[in-house]
Amino acid sequence: MSIDLNADVGEGFGQYSIGYDEGVLKLVSSCNVACGFHAGDPIHIEKTILTALENGVKIGAHPSYPDLQGFGRRIMNLEQDELRSIILYQISAVKGIIESLGGSLSHVKPHGALYTHSALYPPHAEAIVRAIQLADDQLPLLGLGNTQHEKVAAENQVLFVKEAFADRNYDSKGGLVSRSRTHALIQDPHAVASQVLSICQHREVISEDNSAVPVNAESICFHGDHPNAVDNLKRTRALLAENEIAVKAFSQ
Amino acid sequence: MSIDLNADVGEGFGQYSIGYDEGVLKLVSSCNVACGFHAGDPIHIEKTILTALENGVKIGAHPSYPDLQGFGRRIMNLEQDELRSIILYQISAVKGIIESLGGSLSHVKPHGALYTHSALYPPHAEAIVRAIQLADDQLPLLGLGNTQHEKVAAENQVLFVKEAFADRNYDSKGGLVSRSRTHALIQDPHAVASQVLSICQHREVISEDNSAVPVNAESICFHGDHPNAVDNLKRTRALLAENEIAVKAFSQ
Amino acid sequence: MSIDLNADVGEGFGQYSIGYDEGVLKLVSSCNVACGFHAGDPIHIEKTILTALENGVKIGAHPSYPDLQGFGRRIMNLEQDELRSIILYQISAVKGIIESLGGSLSHVKPHGALYTHSALYPPHAEAIVRAIQLADDQLPLLGLGNTQHEKVAAENQVLFVKEAFADRNYDSKGGLVSRSRTHALIQDPHAVASQVLSICQHREVISEDNSAVPVNAESICFHGDHPNAVDNLKRTRALLAENEIAVKAFSQ
Amino acid sequence: MSIDLNADVGEGFGQYSIGYDEGVLKLVSSCNVACGFHAGDPIHIEKTILTALENGVKIGAHPSYPDLQGFGRRIMNLEQDELRSIILYQISAVKGIIESLGGSLSHVKPHGALYTHSALYPPHAEAIVRAIQLADDQLPLLGLGNTQHEKVAAENQVLFVKEAFADRNYDSKGGLVSRSRTHALIQDPHAVASQVLSICQHREVISEDNSAVPVNAESICFHGDHPNAVDNLKRTRALLAENEIAVKAFSQ
Repeated sequence: MSIDLNADVGEGFGQYSIGYDEGVLKLVSSCNVACGFHAGDPIHIEKTILTALENGVKIGAHPSYPDLQGFGRRIMNLEQDELRSIILYQISAVKGIIESLGGSLSHVKPHGALYTHSALYPPHAEAIVRAIQLADDQLPLLGLGNTQHEKVAAENQVLFVKEAFADRNYDSKGGLVSRSRTHALIQDPHAVASQVLSICQHREVISEDNSAVPVNAESICFHGDHPNAVDNLKRTRALLAENEIAVKAFSQ
Repeated sequence: MSIDLNADVGEGFGQYSIGYDEGVLKLVSSCNVACGFHAGDPIHIEKTILTALENGVKIGAHPSYPDLQGFGRRIMNLEQDELRSIILYQISAVKGIIESLGGSLSHVKPHGALYTHSALYPPHAEAIVRAIQLADDQLPLLGLGNTQHEKVAAENQVLFVKEAFADRNYDSKGGLVSRSRTHALIQDPHAVASQVLSICQHREVISEDNSAVPVNAESICFHGDHPNAVDNLKRTRALLAENEIAVKAFSQ
Repeated sequence: MSIDLNADVGEGFGQYSIGYDEGVLKLVSSCNVACGFHAGDPIHIEKTILTALENGVKIGAHPSYPDLQGFGRRIMNLEQDELRSIILYQISAVKGIIESLGGSLSHVKPHGALYTHSALYPPHAEAIVRAIQLADDQLPLLGLGNTQHEKVAAENQVLFVKEAFADRNYDSKGGLVSRSRTHALIQDPHAVASQVLSICQHREVISEDNSAVPVNAESICFHGDHPNAVDNLKRTRALLAENEIAVKAFSQ
Repeated sequence: MSIDLNADVGEGFGQYSIGYDEGVLKLVSSCNVACGFHAGDPIHIEKTILTALENGVKIGAHPSYPDLQGFGRRIMNLEQDELRSIILYQISAVKGIIESLGGSLSHVKPHGALYTHSALYPPHAEAIVRAIQLADDQLPLLGLGNTQHEKVAAENQVLFVKEAFADRNYDSKGGLVSRSRTHALIQDPHAVASQVLSICQHREVISEDNSAVPVNAESICFHGDHPNAVDNLKRTRALLAENEIAVKAFSQ
C-alpha cells in the first residue's frame, strides 16, 4: 500500500521567498513548480527544480492565471483559447527547464483561482486539458475528484489523478472549509497526520461537524507555506511508516 | 549557392501589434520568435509559430533582458547565472510551444540590448551559450561575427551562424550606422536588395562613405517593422532569383 | 447649447502605439489618460498629458483592472478594498503628473472591463467611487447612465457625468451592440456625426432595428483607435457647428 | 541636539512580505515607501502609509528602476528623460495616496541600484532631481553626501539631506563594505547603536580596519529587513536617549 504526498513549491519571486521549499522537498514524493505567472521567476524555478531532482521528487508544472500581483488567487475571465495558450507557455517553460537539468515533467496541477474555478467551469477545465494534450498527451492532470477536472480529463482521454488535502478541514459535504473561516487550516501536525492516515486506510475524513465523509485520493497535498509545513510532513511520514504505508509518487 | 533570410517576429503584445509578420513570414527562410520578456505574450507567440510552420519557415527563439516596458532595448546589469536562467526559461517556453505544434526549434538569436551588449561583454555572451547548451547543445547561436558571440560559442563548441543586415547602412569599419543617425536605415527596397546581393556575391557592402567593407554572413536579417519590410524582401528575393541564388534556411 | 466630446488616449506602451492621439487631441474637449495598468507607461502618459495641455483639452484618469497582457478587457474578481487601492494608485499617479505639468485632473472614467463590469456590479462601482472620494471628492465620475455608475455616485454625493457613444451602434433597449457583431462599430463618419447630432438635439439614437431609443448624455465618447477616428471627429465638429452646438468640456 | 532615523518600508508585494514594517514604523522618525516599481503594490503601499501616519512618521517616496523581478538592484541603462518620467510617475502615485490619507510627502530617496548608480552617474542623478522639481520643488532629496546626489541637487537648488548607515560597516575611505563581504552588515544591536552615537557626537565611524573615518549625516538609515531591525532601533533609541539626543525627522 502506498500514497503520494505533494506540495506546491518554487513560489518565491526575486528577493521574496515563501514557504519552506528546502525542508518540504526532502519529505514529499511529488511537487508542483510555479511557472512564473503567479509566482516564480526563472532563477527560483531553476533552483527549485534542481533541489527536487536532488531529492528524487517528481516534478509537475503549476500553471496559473497571469496575475503576479494577486498570486493567481483572483478569477480572471479569459477566453478558453487564450487561457490554453497561457497554460501551454507555462508548461513549456517548466518542462524545458526540467529536461535541461536531466529530469522529466511528471504532471500538471493548476494553481489557486485557476484550480478552484476550473473545477466548476468547463471552458477553463478544457483549456487546461487541451494545453496538456498539446504539451504531452501522456501527462496526468492532478486535480480535484468529482469536478470538471475529472470529467473533462476523462472526456479527452487525459489521465487524471485525484488529490485530497492533508492540512485543511473538510465540511460535511466533502468540500473544504473556506479560508475565510478560522478553522480552515488544521494546525496540529498530529491531526494532519491522522487525517492523511484516515484517507489512506478508510477513504474518509472527519469533517468540521464530526461526521465521517468519504474522500478518495491518490495524492495528498501539503501546503508548503503552512507554519508547520515541515512538521506536518514529518509526523505524517512517521505515522504512515508505523502503518506500513509507503510514500511513493503516483507517476513512477 | 544559397542564403538564409531571417526576421524577428511575434513581437506583438496583448492588443498591440508591431511589424508585418503575416507578409514577412511568407518571404523569409528563418525567423526569430519573441519569448515574452521584451514582447510577445503566449497568444501572439503561439499564433506566430503556427504561421511560421504553415509557411515552412525555420523557427528560432529570440530571448531578451526582462524589460517589457523598454522592449528589451536597455542594457541591464544582470549576473551571468541569473541571466542564464532567464534565457533558458525563454528558450524553453518557445521550444515547448513549437514542439507542441509539431515543429522543432532551429536556433537562438538574442534580442536588442542583449544582442548588442553580449557581442561586447563576455559574461553575457557566456550566459547565452550556457543556456543553449542546457536547452540543446546542437542548437546554433545566430549572432554577429567577429564578436564575443562567435568567440564564446567557439570556446564552448556551440555552433555559430553569422548574420548581416539587409536594411541597415554600414560604417567604414564594418559596424552598423547608429540608429540615432538619419541614414541608419536603408529605405529603398532596390538598395536593400543590392546590399544583400553584394554580401552574397562579393562578401562586402558599400559603407556610408562609399568604401567597400568586407561582410561575411550565412544569414541576412530583415527588420520586420521596417516600413518597407515586405517590399524589401520581395525585391531581394527577385534579385537573388535573377542571380540564381536560392533562399534557404541555414538549418536544413 | 454645448456638448463635450471625449476620447481614451495615452494607450501606447513602450515601443507600441495605438490609436491616433495626436489628431484626436486636437478635436476633443476632454480625454481619459491610461494610468499604466492596462496600457500607458510613464513616458507615454507624460507625453500624452503634455499634448492634451497644449491643446486645452480637459484631462481625466482612466484606471483599469491590473491586466496589461489583456489590455484591461478581462473581468477580474478583486475584493472591493484591493480594487479601491489599485484605482487610487492609478488616479494619484496621473493626477500628480498632470499637476507637475501645470494642469489639474478633471474627472475619472473607468476603462474596459472595469467600466462594463462596475456598471452592473455594485462592489466594483463602490471601489471606484471610494477611490474618487479619497483622491478628490469634487472629481466627477464619467460613466454610463442608469447603471451602478450613476446610482453609487449619487448615493455617495460624487458628481456623475453620463456619456454616450458616437461610433457604436445601439440596440433597441438602449444598450450597445456587442463588439462580437460585425455592425458593432459605425464606420461612416457622416453616420457617426448624425448620431451625435441626434443625441444633442433629440436625446435619442436610431437603433440597429431602426427604432428611436432615448439616449441622454453630457459627453460623447469617440474611440481613438477607430480606423476613422480623426474623420469621425472632424465631421462631427463640422455638423455640430452647422447646428450651432458648441464643443465644450463638461468640467469648465 | 537631534537626529533623524529612517528606514525603507512598504516593500511587500501581493502575498509576499519582507522586513518588519510594523515594528520599525514605531521606532523611526522618517520612512521611505516603495512605489511599485521594485516592490510595493497599491495595497501594501496604502497600508504602509496608513501605519506611518498613525505613528507620526514622516513619509518619503522611494522610487526605483522598473525592475520588480530584480527588486531594483540591477543597473538599467535608461535615457535621462525616460528615467525622469518613470521617477515622476512613482513620486506622483505615492504623493497622491499620502495626501488622500491626510498626510503630505516629506522627501524622495532613490532605491537600490538607482541610489548607488545615480550617486556616480550625473544623468541619473539629474533625472531624480528633475522629477523632484516637477513634483514639488520644495521636496528634499535624501541621499549620499559627497556624491552626484549632493552635487546635482545643489546645482538645481533642490534641498539635500545626507544620510549615513546604522547597520553597515564602513571601509577606511568612508565607503560601505560591499554586501558580498561577510562583515558588510553590523549584526550586534549594541554595535549598531554605538555607530549611530558616534556619528551624532563625533561625526565619525570606526571603519573595518579600526581607523576613525569622518561621516556627516542628518539622517541615519536602518535596514528594515535586517534580522535584528527592531532591536537595532530599540537599542539605538535607548543609547541616544541616555546621551540626550532626540530622534526627530529632518523635515519638521
